[in-house]
Amino acid sequence: MASYLEQTVYLNGAYLKGRDAKISIFDRGVLFADSVYEGLGVLDGQVVDLWNHLARLRRSLSQLNMPDPHTDEAYVAIFNRLIAANDMDEGFLYLQITRGVADRNYVYAQDMTPTVFAFVQVNPDPAAPPTGRSMRSHPDLRWKRRDIKTSNLLGQVMAKTAADQAGAYEALMIDDDGHVTEGGATSFFIVRDRVVVARPVDNSILHGITRQTMLRVAEEMGYDIAQRRFTLDEALSADEAFLTGASSYVEPVTEIDGQPIGSGAPGAYTLSLRARYLDAVRAGF
Amino acid sequence: MASYLEQTVYLNGAYLKGRDAKISIFDRGVLFADSVYEGLGVLDGQVVDLWNHLARLRRSLSQLNMPDPHTDEAYVAIFNRLIAANDMDEGFLYLQITRGVADRNYVYAQDMTPTVFAFVQVNPDPAAPPTGRSMRSHPDLRWKRRDIKTSNLLGQVMAKTAADQAGAYEALMIDDDGHVTEGGATSFFIVRDRVVVARPVDNSILHGITRQTMLRVAEEMGYDIAQRRFTLDEALSADEAFLTGASSYVEPVTEIDGQPIGSGAPGAYTLSLRARYLDAVRAGF
Repeated sequence: MASYLEQTVYLNGAYLKGRDAKISIFDRGVLFADSVYEGLGVLDGQVVDLWNHLARLRRSLSQLNMPDPHTDEAYVAIFNRLIAANDMDEGFLYLQITRGVADRNYVYAQDMTPTVFAFVQVNPDPAAPPTGRSMRSHPDLRWKRRDIKTSNLLGQVMAKTAADQAGAYEALMIDDDGHVTEGGATSFFIVRDRVVVARPVDNSILHGITRQTMLRVAEEMGYDIAQRRFTLDEALSADEAFLTGASSYVEPVTEIDGQPIGSGAPGAYTLSLRARYLDAVRAGF
Repeated sequence: MASYLEQTVYLNGAYLKGRDAKISIFDRGVLFADSVYEGLGVLDGQVVDLWNHLARLRRSLSQLNMPDPHTDEAYVAIFNRLIAANDMDEGFLYLQITRGVADRNYVYAQDMTPTVFAFVQVNPDPAAPPTGRSMRSHPDLRWKRRDIKTSNLLGQVMAKTAADQAGAYEALMIDDDGHVTEGGATSFFIVRDRVVVARPVDNSILHGITRQTMLRVAEEMGYDIAQRRFTLDEALSADEAFLTGASSYVEPVTEIDGQPIGSGAPGAYTLSLRARYLDAVRAGF
């Protein structure tokens, strides 16, 4: 597996080595975090939930009044070439679009040319079974438009680094009012009394693509689903807890803030949802 | 005046043309907005409030657990060389420090090498008198650590662009509770009943360097100062309003949301504060 500096990446129409992919210090992505991104899972060499990710990307661009630089076909061609060039069977595809390069000014011009780049992270151990993940709660410091997938990620960096330093896998972000929002880079769910509980989507959380597909799968499986907010205490006393994300799919959470969740082992709802989710996305290829 | 692409900029120890100053797409400043910055005024070829800006830069770095890559002397050498190379008498100096380059991972390593770059914006019309500025109110969308001067600036970009599209010079950001926080890239003050009213510093606003020096000057002038929060309505019915910022110093605000403030002309407190502020910083050179 090539290091990120040796892998093949995409930048503004060119395919080049990671170490040669550079953008201007005057790029608004650098100066203002004026940029959006998508992270997509790759399974069996195929992009998972491709069309839903492209739809969310276009929503993010539209919310920030940024033009969409590519057609569906052009995005798919970039993804497929990166998968092939980096010999990727399983892993993560990353795409970022910035508003482009200009002299520093908060106010942007309407006619800018976006900067587009993409790279992959190959998962070297695709057969790894799901293990129980640990989480650590952290105040949700983020801005009020968490529904837009932008590179303003310092709140997540702080939460996830604090979790890591405490020996946990992921952060569990808690809003001012004591309710759980989501994981540092994942959506978060609990199961209580045979009901899958999901925070409803609004501007306070990202509209997770894996979340959306998992909930559809849960519905097809006949599970009861409650879309409502819930507190950290409700999560700690849940029967099960789990995460969803573009590169983690559906993963059991077995410990939060040092306390075991349910039995302390991956739960039955979670494991069946993971299995059915993976079947469903593979069937969609 | 050279365009930003032709001017001399600083990047990681080198002085080069703006068009040649590029950083990796894997820089954490690009991927996560994991970076801090400072903006400094230049008057008569001298940096305004240099030591206070360096102190705030170090506070920002420290809050994010980032190492400080340079000594005072090294920062001063960079600033002076950019001022000389770009033949700048009056304008704006910009310095940004990112956590550095690594494969994408929210969790950062402790031993990273920061990316450092700096550039200038020359003000071609240094003798311009202060004119009355217009503002447009906008919800304050930002995160909860506004005291750290980071490149997570999309909330400001959205507010300032909305103000610009409405024909106003600057945004006036309003928190969920209806209180004014600050301008899009400036601190904001009102004068009511012969009292200068300033929102107290905490995590909800940037700790403005020009703000701090202006308040010291106001105190020396014997003005009454109240540090308290105030609403948009109080601002609209104020006797005077003004902004402070590293490149604007002290500027009168004469219109907010289309309504004149006070007489609709720059106020006496504001103009005297501006004059004394400029005297004070020049005396400090």
